[in-house]
Amino acid sequence: MAHIELGNDGPGIRGLLAYRPESARPITELCEMLLRGDNTLSRGERELIAAYVSRLNECDFCANSHGVCAALQLPGGAEQVGQVLSGAPGGEPVSGKLSALLDIAGLVQLGGRMVTEESVAKARAAGATDVEIHDTVLIAAAFCMLNRYVDGLAAPTPGDPAQYAAMGDRLVREGYLGPR
Amino acid sequence: MAHIELGNDGPGIRGLLAYRPESARPITELCEMLLRGDNTLSRGERELIAAYVSRLNECDFCANSHGVCAALQLPGGAEQVGQVLSGAPGGEPVSGKLSALLDIAGLVQLGGRMVTEESVAKARAAGATDVEIHDTVLIAAAFCMLNRYVDGLAAPTPGDPAQYAAMGDRLVREGYLGPR
Repeated sequence: MAHIELGNDGPGIRGLLAYRPESARPITELCEMLLRGDNTLSRGERELIAAYVSRLNECDFCANSHGVCAALQLPGGAEQVGQVLSGAPGGEPVSGKLSALLDIAGLVQLGGRMVTEESVAKARAAGATDVEIHDTVLIAAAFCMLNRYVDGLAAPTPGDPAQYAAMGDRLVREGYLGPR
Repeated sequence: MAHIELGNDGPGIRGLLAYRPESARPITELCEMLLRGDNTLSRGERELIAAYVSRLNECDFCANSHGVCAALQLPGGAEQVGQVLSGAPGGEPVSGKLSALLDIAGLVQLGGRMVTEESVAKARAAGATDVEIHDTVLIAAAFCMLNRYVDGLAAPTPGDPAQYAAMGDRLVREGYLGPR
């Protein structure tokens, strides 16, 4: 049960967004821009960064829902996402550039001051542009907000994978501003 | 020097917002709603929550600028803000309700899962409404984003208190969407 009376039964952040439409609008617009707007990082790559940070923050709702979005939009699908999120050793689940950006995202999760010049230089050497580095930091930071929002209010987190599959499918089709 | 070439000399988050207007719009709209929109928590109280979380995240830019905004809008001024941000013992720098909300904000800073039913019950017993608890969690979560955004990109952080005084004064007068 959530820490406050939400007056609706939307799962995870959806219940919170319905509870407070005033904050829902800029939050969903930020998600749409960061995860689906024009970008040289693919939508799948950006969803993977979001899911990765959510996993590090132990936010099951966001890790599961954005993990599905990443799996639907990455060439390697659910297996690739699972390898990255579980931190399983072996293999090269993502490109050198995406790997370096995930490293930066992981540092952001620990705290802004943890991002080093070396980690940024490594991403740049692997081909990342300044905008890609900027967006990676902001996606990681945004999920440090969203994960805390969901779990800080104890928003209901479904346990059934089918619910995440349905949510992810809808998000990939309609986006974050689309009809819910 | 920032980790990326911003192409402008705006201090702290202002340089980042100018660099990427696409994300600046929802971010500033969220700040305006959370910190200045209609609310039973005063603007000073909300700025104090923002400054407190920023201090916990060791984000000097945000702690200083929002600390000034809080000081300008709280009856106890800079002395009250200093007491809360320094965690100095003694005295009762804020009301029981605001103290309980600051406690919740501090738990959110640690992680969403750290917020306990007890901490929420304590805030409610001190008179906090569900919307106030919601907004406290979201303000704290939002500053976990903003602090990471600023420091994760090593945005230039002024050292001169006069610059923060000027920024705070302008924010209090014009808000987060106002002319910069």
